[in-house]
Amino acid sequence: MTPVRKLVLLGTGLIGGSFALALKRARLVEHVVGVGRNQANLARALDLNVIDSASQSAAEAARGADLVLLATPVGQMGALMAEIAPVLADDCIVTDGGSTKQDVAALYREHLGERLAQCVPGHPIAGSELSGAAAAQYGLFEGRRVVLTPLPETAVDAVARIRALWLACGADVFEMSAAEHDGVFAAVSHVPHLLSFAYMNALLDKADVGTCLDFAATGFRDFTRIAGSHPDMWRDISLANSGAVLNDLRANLGALQTLISLIESGDADALTAYIGRASKARTDWGSRGRKP
Amino acid sequence: MTPVRKLVLLGTGLIGGSFALALKRARLVEHVVGVGRNQANLARALDLNVIDSASQSAAEAARGADLVLLATPVGQMGALMAEIAPVLADDCIVTDGGSTKQDVAALYREHLGERLAQCVPGHPIAGSELSGAAAAQYGLFEGRRVVLTPLPETAVDAVARIRALWLACGADVFEMSAAEHDGVFAAVSHVPHLLSFAYMNALLDKADVGTCLDFAATGFRDFTRIAGSHPDMWRDISLANSGAVLNDLRANLGALQTLISLIESGDADALTAYIGRASKARTDWGSRGRKP
Repeated sequence: MTPVRKLVLLGTGLIGGSFALALKRARLVEHVVGVGRNQANLARALDLNVIDSASQSAAEAARGADLVLLATPVGQMGALMAEIAPVLADDCIVTDGGSTKQDVAALYREHLGERLAQCVPGHPIAGSELSGAAAAQYGLFEGRRVVLTPLPETAVDAVARIRALWLACGADVFEMSAAEHDGVFAAVSHVPHLLSFAYMNALLDKADVGTCLDFAATGFRDFTRIAGSHPDMWRDISLANSGAVLNDLRANLGALQTLISLIESGDADALTAYIGRASKARTDWGSRGRKP
Repeated sequence: MTPVRKLVLLGTGLIGGSFALALKRARLVEHVVGVGRNQANLARALDLNVIDSASQSAAEAARGADLVLLATPVGQMGALMAEIAPVLADDCIVTDGGSTKQDVAALYREHLGERLAQCVPGHPIAGSELSGAAAAQYGLFEGRRVVLTPLPETAVDAVARIRALWLACGADVFEMSAAEHDGVFAAVSHVPHLLSFAYMNALLDKADVGTCLDFAATGFRDFTRIAGSHPDMWRDISLANSGAVLNDLRANLGALQTLISLIESGDADALTAYIGRASKARTDWGSRGRKP
């Protein structure tokens, strides 16, 4: 495979940095430019050889690049696309790591409408509480999944190129439509986060919340880990994917009402069946033996 | 401290076995009798020196004991109390490890009404997915919390004795009323379990649940870990503690409705504040630095 000559990371954090490191290890990139707002983070990325040069200007960095990875929060991607649009080379592929895809597809369409054949929307499934270039690691994508959601206009060659690069990072690569992606991730990622936020809010409204938190143990710890996530990021995701998210939140409202009725009625058998259905499905999922 | 002469474990699993091991290590017990329905489990407990002798009969075992620990599911405790009531020595303390306390208090009152001074209801907070005598470990209670919920009739000396034994196991010991206990654990344990069961049921109702589960990752894994819990145990807890559980489930229904309204309205600032409140509280809890 031909190495990438000049990879530009718009956003030099965990995802962008780990992508660069994995391609370096595979000898599939010659030069990596890191772009970001945070000077200290860029300096650290240079020190750690995550990037080979740093820039404050997306347009300047993108000039002459053959691959641009947008790896910022989705909220910043539109402005960055607009900035790089005038300077993009004809052979440059633009991809991203955004965790919602219908809204990012709309951004590509708005800002890079003349270059959609070169645009490959994507989502590497490798979250972490860690962030910043210092958290980047060679093996982050090893055994992880990457979902590509090509636009109707995206060139087959561009998709194949991005697929091959992610495979070289050790990831399994899948394709689906942006709508299907957003439905699936609403169900297994966005809604669990939102339910965890709602639970914490209900707990905080209790008069004895202090005592409750004193006695919270491992079940609480794991159930609420994702409630510690970044508010701005999750506000953006909730609003960007509001259709699928609201659909699933309403289904959860219904499930909760069913459960309340079962406990109110004291119907032990029905309650056992209800809990048993959940427990079996979760246990089956956990015993699949692949890295979640 | 005077060692326990004869400790009887009614239920020889993770909790009972670990209590016995911790007291043995502290040289605070002379003889441990394990009682249980499962012969293979008792044989394993003997092999591992978790217990010194085994019995199929609670009454036979309890004769001459100075400490009985009920460490079965709460649903079996009433029958066991009735069985041991006729043979209990006057100096024998009875305690338990049940995870709900108002219903267990009622069982003591029903079956050991003449001996309430000797009864010390308790709840060691040390759950695990593991079970059985083979999972027992010396250090299970090290740094963990034990809540005692003495009855009005419980003798001060009996509480002090049980407190001292748990302290010797490395636990921190707290006292509260059974009602307060049940309210706190509804909030931070029972309701998270039930919300996780409800979420799994809603997910299983989706037409594309297979694809969803294929792409579920670490957030899903942690949020739903407790959904894999044992259906019978959680049915019993839900029904035994239905007052506090229903109260908190309804509060969660309200919180979820609020969150749905915020996303529907697209009010970004209010949504950020809502998520931010949850995120800050969870992050503060996580940075307390004590074992949850």
